[in-house]
Amino acid sequence: MQRTLKELADLVGGRVAGDGSVVVTGINSIDEAGPGEITFLANPRYASRLTDTKASAVIVTDAKLSPKLPAIVVPDPDLAFAQVAGAFADHSVPRRRGVHPTAVVGERVTVGRDVGIGPQCVVEEGATIGDGTVLEAQVYVGRNASIGRDCLLYPHVSVRDGCILGDRVILHCGVVVGADGFGYVTVKGVHHKIPQIGIAVLEDDVEVGANAAVDRARFGRTIVRRGTKIDNLVQVGHNVHIGEQCLLAAQVGIAGSTRVGHHVMLGGQVGVSGHIELGDRSIATAQSGVDKNLPPGTIASGAPARPRQQHLRGLATVDRLPETLRKLKRRIEELEKRRGPGQE
Amino acid sequence: MQRTLKELADLVGGRVAGDGSVVVTGINSIDEAGPGEITFLANPRYASRLTDTKASAVIVTDAKLSPKLPAIVVPDPDLAFAQVAGAFADHSVPRRRGVHPTAVVGERVTVGRDVGIGPQCVVEEGATIGDGTVLEAQVYVGRNASIGRDCLLYPHVSVRDGCILGDRVILHCGVVVGADGFGYVTVKGVHHKIPQIGIAVLEDDVEVGANAAVDRARFGRTIVRRGTKIDNLVQVGHNVHIGEQCLLAAQVGIAGSTRVGHHVMLGGQVGVSGHIELGDRSIATAQSGVDKNLPPGTIASGAPARPRQQHLRGLATVDRLPETLRKLKRRIEELEKRRGPGQE
Amino acid sequence: MQRTLKELADLVGGRVAGDGSVVVTGINSIDEAGPGEITFLANPRYASRLTDTKASAVIVTDAKLSPKLPAIVVPDPDLAFAQVAGAFADHSVPRRRGVHPTAVVGERVTVGRDVGIGPQCVVEEGATIGDGTVLEAQVYVGRNASIGRDCLLYPHVSVRDGCILGDRVILHCGVVVGADGFGYVTVKGVHHKIPQIGIAVLEDDVEVGANAAVDRARFGRTIVRRGTKIDNLVQVGHNVHIGEQCLLAAQVGIAGSTRVGHHVMLGGQVGVSGHIELGDRSIATAQSGVDKNLPPGTIASGAPARPRQQHLRGLATVDRLPETLRKLKRRIEELEKRRGPGQE
Repeated sequence: MQRTLKELADLVGGRVAGDGSVVVTGINSIDEAGPGEITFLANPRYASRLTDTKASAVIVTDAKLSPKLPAIVVPDPDLAFAQVAGAFADHSVPRRRGVHPTAVVGERVTVGRDVGIGPQCVVEEGATIGDGTVLEAQVYVGRNASIGRDCLLYPHVSVRDGCILGDRVILHCGVVVGADGFGYVTVKGVHHKIPQIGIAVLEDDVEVGANAAVDRARFGRTIVRRGTKIDNLVQVGHNVHIGEQCLLAAQVGIAGSTRVGHHVMLGGQVGVSGHIELGDRSIATAQSGVDKNLPPGTIASGAPARPRQQHLRGLATVDRLPETLRKLKRRIEELEKRRGPGQE
Repeated sequence: MQRTLKELADLVGGRVAGDGSVVVTGINSIDEAGPGEITFLANPRYASRLTDTKASAVIVTDAKLSPKLPAIVVPDPDLAFAQVAGAFADHSVPRRRGVHPTAVVGERVTVGRDVGIGPQCVVEEGATIGDGTVLEAQVYVGRNASIGRDCLLYPHVSVRDGCILGDRVILHCGVVVGADGFGYVTVKGVHHKIPQIGIAVLEDDVEVGANAAVDRARFGRTIVRRGTKIDNLVQVGHNVHIGEQCLLAAQVGIAGSTRVGHHVMLGGQVGVSGHIELGDRSIATAQSGVDKNLPPGTIASGAPARPRQQHLRGLATVDRLPETLRKLKRRIEELEKRRGPGQE
Repeated sequence: MQRTLKELADLVGGRVAGDGSVVVTGINSIDEAGPGEITFLANPRYASRLTDTKASAVIVTDAKLSPKLPAIVVPDPDLAFAQVAGAFADHSVPRRRGVHPTAVVGERVTVGRDVGIGPQCVVEEGATIGDGTVLEAQVYVGRNASIGRDCLLYPHVSVRDGCILGDRVILHCGVVVGADGFGYVTVKGVHHKIPQIGIAVLEDDVEVGANAAVDRARFGRTIVRRGTKIDNLVQVGHNVHIGEQCLLAAQVGIAGSTRVGHHVMLGGQVGVSGHIELGDRSIATAQSGVDKNLPPGTIASGAPARPRQQHLRGLATVDRLPETLRKLKRRIEELEKRRGPGQE
């Protein structure tokens, strides 16, 4: 695909500074871009890096930042760049359409318009696939599962029986939605399985990364609400509810029945205990272990997680500890020495 | 499915209190249950929550706890509820039977009675599938692997060549049994692979969660013994032996050759070093890092893991540290001040 | 397969001590080996264990270590054992050859000589499969992806569109190469996806463990260089570059755009922040959280990671803290007591 700079400016609602007829054939970072590629400057502080770029054009917040290179001027270069990238991405691969002859589609399956079901997919009986949705190769959709419109399920995804996806949900390779939650009753040392007869629900615009898992509920629903993005290898336990527009980084684990509010951010490898509540807009930084409720807006760190400032003070105190103790001892020794034997 | 309360009471060996002819059509939690559903009260402390439930019946330890709602009275409501849930679950989906025409079954494969092999499964030559076992869609069973009776393997499971499953083993979507262990000999900075020619064995009643992995042994066997339950995204390294009736929560990792006793419990994201021993009934709480042997019955926490009481005292000491140091300094200052210049 | 001890000695360039006509039929550890099996003694300190072994032969550094058992003498028994194991492993299973009739191979796919493409594999249009490469069952290779020579891809592997594997790459079950990186632009609380239009490249001799994921780059390349070995359930974020001959243990996570040098070793469950640099031959021990650059050769531990010696001193200081504080208090009390009322 190729577009003129002017065409791209129109696409993102920006203004051209310089030669709008420049032809753009791809996108890249400032450092790696070559001729024909467009790049972007998110932070005016790094404007000096534009001097050496080999890009043919740039997206900036102010034409002054790019006196030599033709530019698109927008308030939010990050967003504009994402839109431009989207334009190029959409045209790079033809979209899959139709049901591949090797796919196995069960009875009473409802398939919408413009659906693509790729080779060796299995769609079990009673499932629904919404308009415009694409199942790439080797996807599994269980009995009576419901996939919304314009979803994209990559190879080796499993959506188990009865689970529900909203619209525009993206599931990357190996994602498992609706495996049984981890629930047992232990009688005399033997674990008896508690059937997990609930479902998992992923609302509109949820995206889940490679090999992540969202368990079905014991009964009722595990829910990931609208717009939440989940990275690779994340574990969401049974009966967890996650609010809207959260970001869960890679390898996060959330134990059963926890409630996560809206706009919550969890850093990589964070662990969250079961049966607790994380308030709206709370944040837990990477590797922290959240074992108590977080009030809305809290930034928590460490294991067990504390308010970030308290955690950092704790770390600093411990770091200074050998020195602090040495000083205290010296002062005590000084006091002890000065008390000569005459005072006894 | 629907059953009368009396029928369910007979199923779980309980006694009906109130109207045994009430028709039950499903199960749910106290808060989420509606008309027709049965719920349960595990802890008498929460009896007040029964006042507001919309359930039609309840399982309790004592008829007095439910003066209004028809009840089943049993000593262990958790267990009875699991049994009731099982009854409902078993009837919700028809069991897969027969070999699907798209499955690829190799030569010299032994298939027992009442086996279901779903669409696009691959069973390699020499493998054995025991009576009553179901392979859902897209399962892979390697050469000469042996699957016992009444097992249930969900989509995208891989059981690699030569590995052995006992009876009633459940493997959730994406589980990998018998991938090569992580073993190399490094000569002059170059890593040479040590072939992993052992196998992995999962004994009767083992259950493994979505996308978890149990590596094959370098030689000999990696073993997970009878009744042990493993949650999603867990890693069990090569030559690890795990005892009976253990519980491993999500994202636990156990490095090679470690021996885990019976009835051991590992919390979420626990890491266990290689070549150590965890005694029977030992517990490591979430996110702890176990790098030394644990004596039987130990409860360990923290990284590196310590006996839990010591760990908690350590945390408390560090938490109080700024205040403790401040007080000590004040007392020293006081002593220093009181030593007037006259004493010099 | 069976070989005489003399044949095996020739294979590994070693010398026979004792009866070279002994027939070897398998390999095993000192403790588990039985008649017909060969074992090895890597560390002369454990020579006493040879007294009780039931093995028929052993690989040692010095004939004196094995006065009774026939032996192969080599400078590096670990390496020789790996070579012997390799010889036995290669003959245990016949190699897959040809394209299975149920595999779906798209248009313009280039397939080299001696390739094996197993049942229910999907190779999308424009992909390249190099000479001698084997795709076991149910593998997915995306559009225009390129797989080098003599690679081995196990069941349920996904290599997404455009990604590149070098020669002799091994991907275990469930590995995902080239899933989208985790990148969003957040405008007024709503996360907009940044298309991930780069690729992932795994160079020659890379091995990746079960269910691990290497994300594609936002643009440009995520790279894992020659000879690096990655264990199960590891997450490599978008635009990460990993150098040659690194070892990443299970469940490691590396966030986006980080640069990892050559010969770096990361212990199990280590987390590495984005946009930092780990110098050549640096090491982070299990569960550490690396959030700053590591100079070459550093050994780092803890979260946040510090130089190992500093980390261990810190742990020791904290461990001794209750006792240290008690002693300080006693000395201060002593000083305070000795100041009798007469001094006021």
